[in-house]
Amino acid sequence: MTGHSVNAQETNKAIESKVKNLLSQMTLEEKVGQMTQVDFTVIGVPKEQNAEDQIDPAKLEDAVLKHHVGSILNTPFTPDNKAQSIDIWRKMMRTVQDAAARTRLKIPVIYGIDAIHGATYTQNSVLFPQAINMAATFNSDLAFKEGEITAREVRASGQQWNFSTVMDIGRQPLWPRLWETFGEDVHLATVMGTAYIKGHQGDDFSAADKLPTCLKHYVGYSYPLNGKDRTPAWIGERMLREYFLPTFEAGVKAGAPTVMVNSAEVDGIPGHANHHYLTTILRGELGFKGFTVSDWADIERLYTRDKMAASPKEAVKIAVMAGIDMSMVPFDFSFYDLLVDLVKSGEVPMSRIDEAVSRILTVKYQAGLFEPKPLLPIEGNFATAEAIETNRQAARESIVLAKNEHNILPLKKDANILVTGPTANLLSAMNGGWTVSWQGATEELYPQEKLTVLEAIQEKATGKVTYVGGDAFDAPIDVQKVIDEAKDHDVILLSLGEHPYTETPGNIETLNLDQAQVDLANAAIATGKPVVLLTLGGRPRIITSIAERASGVILGFLPGMEGGEAIADILYGDYNPNGKLPISYPRNTNGITPYDYKPIESFESNIYNPLYPFGHGLSYTTFETSDLKVEKEKINIGENINVTVNVKNTGSLKGKETVLVYINDVAASVTRPNKQLKAFKKVELNPGQSESLSFTLTPRDLSFIGVDLKRIVEPGDFKVMVGNEMVGFTVTK
Amino acid sequence: MTGHSVNAQETNKAIESKVKNLLSQMTLEEKVGQMTQVDFTVIGVPKEQNAEDQIDPAKLEDAVLKHHVGSILNTPFTPDNKAQSIDIWRKMMRTVQDAAARTRLKIPVIYGIDAIHGATYTQNSVLFPQAINMAATFNSDLAFKEGEITAREVRASGQQWNFSTVMDIGRQPLWPRLWETFGEDVHLATVMGTAYIKGHQGDDFSAADKLPTCLKHYVGYSYPLNGKDRTPAWIGERMLREYFLPTFEAGVKAGAPTVMVNSAEVDGIPGHANHHYLTTILRGELGFKGFTVSDWADIERLYTRDKMAASPKEAVKIAVMAGIDMSMVPFDFSFYDLLVDLVKSGEVPMSRIDEAVSRILTVKYQAGLFEPKPLLPIEGNFATAEAIETNRQAARESIVLAKNEHNILPLKKDANILVTGPTANLLSAMNGGWTVSWQGATEELYPQEKLTVLEAIQEKATGKVTYVGGDAFDAPIDVQKVIDEAKDHDVILLSLGEHPYTETPGNIETLNLDQAQVDLANAAIATGKPVVLLTLGGRPRIITSIAERASGVILGFLPGMEGGEAIADILYGDYNPNGKLPISYPRNTNGITPYDYKPIESFESNIYNPLYPFGHGLSYTTFETSDLKVEKEKINIGENINVTVNVKNTGSLKGKETVLVYINDVAASVTRPNKQLKAFKKVELNPGQSESLSFTLTPRDLSFIGVDLKRIVEPGDFKVMVGNEMVGFTVTK
Repeated sequence: MTGHSVNAQETNKAIESKVKNLLSQMTLEEKVGQMTQVDFTVIGVPKEQNAEDQIDPAKLEDAVLKHHVGSILNTPFTPDNKAQSIDIWRKMMRTVQDAAARTRLKIPVIYGIDAIHGATYTQNSVLFPQAINMAATFNSDLAFKEGEITAREVRASGQQWNFSTVMDIGRQPLWPRLWETFGEDVHLATVMGTAYIKGHQGDDFSAADKLPTCLKHYVGYSYPLNGKDRTPAWIGERMLREYFLPTFEAGVKAGAPTVMVNSAEVDGIPGHANHHYLTTILRGELGFKGFTVSDWADIERLYTRDKMAASPKEAVKIAVMAGIDMSMVPFDFSFYDLLVDLVKSGEVPMSRIDEAVSRILTVKYQAGLFEPKPLLPIEGNFATAEAIETNRQAARESIVLAKNEHNILPLKKDANILVTGPTANLLSAMNGGWTVSWQGATEELYPQEKLTVLEAIQEKATGKVTYVGGDAFDAPIDVQKVIDEAKDHDVILLSLGEHPYTETPGNIETLNLDQAQVDLANAAIATGKPVVLLTLGGRPRIITSIAERASGVILGFLPGMEGGEAIADILYGDYNPNGKLPISYPRNTNGITPYDYKPIESFESNIYNPLYPFGHGLSYTTFETSDLKVEKEKINIGENINVTVNVKNTGSLKGKETVLVYINDVAASVTRPNKQLKAFKKVELNPGQSESLSFTLTPRDLSFIGVDLKRIVEPGDFKVMVGNEMVGFTVTK
Repeated sequence: MTGHSVNAQETNKAIESKVKNLLSQMTLEEKVGQMTQVDFTVIGVPKEQNAEDQIDPAKLEDAVLKHHVGSILNTPFTPDNKAQSIDIWRKMMRTVQDAAARTRLKIPVIYGIDAIHGATYTQNSVLFPQAINMAATFNSDLAFKEGEITAREVRASGQQWNFSTVMDIGRQPLWPRLWETFGEDVHLATVMGTAYIKGHQGDDFSAADKLPTCLKHYVGYSYPLNGKDRTPAWIGERMLREYFLPTFEAGVKAGAPTVMVNSAEVDGIPGHANHHYLTTILRGELGFKGFTVSDWADIERLYTRDKMAASPKEAVKIAVMAGIDMSMVPFDFSFYDLLVDLVKSGEVPMSRIDEAVSRILTVKYQAGLFEPKPLLPIEGNFATAEAIETNRQAARESIVLAKNEHNILPLKKDANILVTGPTANLLSAMNGGWTVSWQGATEELYPQEKLTVLEAIQEKATGKVTYVGGDAFDAPIDVQKVIDEAKDHDVILLSLGEHPYTETPGNIETLNLDQAQVDLANAAIATGKPVVLLTLGGRPRIITSIAERASGVILGFLPGMEGGEAIADILYGDYNPNGKLPISYPRNTNGITPYDYKPIESFESNIYNPLYPFGHGLSYTTFETSDLKVEKEKINIGENINVTVNVKNTGSLKGKETVLVYINDVAASVTRPNKQLKAFKKVELNPGQSESLSFTLTPRDLSFIGVDLKRIVEPGDFKVMVGNEMVGFTVTK
């Protein structure tokens, strides 16, 4: 276990002593510099100059030597803030560390990057399905491998820190970062997030192919009341502890050494000012030892935006005293100047500075920055065939077959297929934000050798493939041409969805699909030819009336760079689909209700009425679970209980199935969900093959947050539910 | 002031002594009976028998004499649970009290009724605009008069208690009881609710024309996460105290002697099990001395629905120990039996029973039930011409003219008008739930002499009036006929909206209008004739694309029984409209944001983008405010500050204008809204006339709920905003 072995303890002790020693030699300015993180802009040659060498030596000197900045982030701003070649990255990173090596104490800079689904800002990196898709795989091995590959590829570019992974829970489908989460369920997100971190960091993130992760966005960021990014959430501490804190707790346990802070506010307190969350809970309860970093400009925004501070200086004081260790300033040295002043005037005690700097230096030592291992060769460590195959497998397992009337799918390869809709021929529509650029929307920057859905179909089909409809999302499409062409085709693939986005540019006013897409769908369906609806995009836009009339529905979300091939594999039966929904797919624009609703919501009528429920996903074969058993009828509080169930492939094709184990606490002092996922396993079975699966439910699995905000297990009856079966057991005092 | 004069103190002392004396004579069973409230069904002749005498003497005996039941509610269940004639009510209420007079201790029954916008269940009562409309009047005199008239008319029917008024805040537009609230603003709801209570109770609610009110639904009921009635809210205590508690605090201060409890749950704790809300806050902080009553069946539902109790008995124990004094059981004596057992077994202490019963008996004494005043004559006290005129005035002031392009309104009386849409010819569409019956949807039960919008137009117009379109809300309307008829008319009145509803039957999945209504609107607009859109219904359904193309928009909400005449008055200029929106009218289905949004919501782009903002409402004249001033530039914490502003009628018609005074606390330790309404005044001005208005802002107006959940005022800068002007002042320590 990371950090718990004797060796790790010795290493920790050695690091502690080194940090203490180093800290004792540092001036106030050097310390505050370590707490300062600036954007590449601050060291870069102005964008307009389009220089080959993008770092301005004088500006770098000013930042690293004069202002002692301890961290830099982001890709250069040359056209479009886009991805750079791996060679350019290596050169730039050498330049930065060379400057750091010329500082008085030779403290390395920790260079951070948003490598969200692979190395976003390195050209030709392996870009995985986004987190919502990874969750749909219900395959933690794939999340682990994504972590491994991402760390290796970022490390290969010379950066030292990845602002990933998102541990927010996705219960607000309007939120333009829903797809960056592992969905609505706490257990699923915990398992997938933990696996990613372990793959990314290994046992020792100073290894040549490992890298520290960053848990974000602590905490409650993902649940804005009105669905808009960076707007207020109302959560309340009981709900926070029940739904939003556990994934961060798991991330801390998994060894993540950094935490990025919620840009918005919860219950009226900005994330960056919340001492209760950042210090009392994160440090006191979760035992987090690493450092916290602000999100983009969020400290000064306590003044400019949140009107919580009466001056920029007060903003710095509030944030630092709340528990922020590093400020992503990002464009100037204002934080540095103000914090130096605040310490000199005694408004911020040196002890708080020493605490923050010690945490930062500790992570720098842990990451091996003081004795950096040589970069691994690019060949064999970057965009390997094996990594690309893993990515394609992740994409395949992430795609949800939601409807398959009369087995319209898989299609015959010699069928004549009419492909239409704005997402059919765009790599960007499969990748979403944080792909090659921030918004991920610049199609021409994408690696052109990768296949769109249309191109992958064209490669695979032996029948006629006709494409109608450009890439317009909200502009009219040539509907008449679709109607005309339909006559000569056997099936229509209707590829709808969203253009790429993240953060505030992705804000929407309604979950309704763009009217132009609805019109196209209505026309396609009216032709009478069977329609297979494919959706791509980060949010579940409302497709109910289309899905009801379509023969097949495939929910693709954001399957990443191999998504086109993966979708074609599934369309034509070269892969048997097994993705399951990690969210409840809403039936209509309002009345959003997650699967773990309360009994009160199914009392008078069942309010949980999504188009497709959490966990839904079809296969080309069939599976049955049976013989659900619990080991004991009674256990004492504090004991585990084992659950077994058989799963059988009852169809005629080999396939994978995820078995989901839910529990219900029958009566409790705080109302409990009708069911909650507590365990799952994914198995691959041949036709007729069955397997007995065993699960252990722990006291933690039976616990909840009580009236007094403490996690408790109450005696009483519990139900375990798998498939159509239910068994009970009792917990006694 | 109620309860504070020497006489009131003496009365209180006398009552205290009487209660003590009476309680000392009571058996456990008699005490628990006082805590029991049953539905009329329990004493009624079965519905099928359709008996003239609806009370079954044996069942009444069983309830009142054998089970010592202290309270009964509701209208009889004979066909449709509908309103009864005043004579029948008087007779039934005599029968009930006669039974009570035959009990050992002769404790009167307190008979409660849902008289929501007037005496709902008494035939031909004066039925006012619903609360959302009363709020739109911004005229607290009208709310006071509604309280007076409602109390008098309920009292005239012989009932003793009104389950009104709703003090919930309406910030969730999907909620099917939004229209029962005074809208989204805390100050407005406080002023209107307080005025209603004072009108309803007077200084002494034992008076022959007064009646006790009931504050409901304590607390947080109105803010379900998914918009469905009786589903979980997430509020958190800071937000609860900021937005949902102040109106209840005001209601307690205004002297309301009873409180009805939230049927649903907040942050995982059902309203009926929340000791912190019901006892610590309601009693300890708000100083409430009256009694609490459960909502319908909500104690047993802690077991059957909320799964919070492991048995019906535990449910009773939890609720009573949390602080519920009376159970609206309503169909049996289970609560009575279980509570008697619980006291006998020592699980509920007698002290808690004595406390609850003392509170109930105190209110019965305060209401004069032990020495009832003779009922006032019907003539002169029920449905008087004056009351009906007040109702019409309330309706007129409650209607919001939202758009008036090229002064399409007022219409000329000789214009040829085509009236269409499902709400044009229904009294029920103007009244909503709690009208003549629970759901208010049975049009044939409505008093047929009242005028629908169509009928009122027919009375007033001298030109041709043509009506196309029945009362179908979600079924196709004869669109072709609208198109054909439009040719011969000058203007189209398009009357859209919702059918009546309340509680769970009113749950919806989307704020979108029914497609049939959208189709009708598109056809009407396509005719090229000017369209005036009128909306009726309890919620702001999405009308954006229609409103943008209509020449005029009138938002009618639920203007009550005189709504048809009031709307015709406004349409034809016989009344100059002055209603203002008490909610933000949403532009689209999602992204709902109230007017008092936080600065973070207008930082990158202005997220507050409703179709019509809070406070919006046009007139046929124009008003200007000017010369906004604060009395001082600096005040100390704890001081008042006076604000003055001039308002002038700059148009050519007499009219009323409401001047709204907003403040903003510029920087605070909990983020503050961009603005909050803190005062308003409504004035009537002749053309050219101006008036200087003066407002006093108190320390309470400058306060907010701090990090530690306490109400505080922080020193710093404040802004005062009226119209286009803004002035500042500073609060110092």
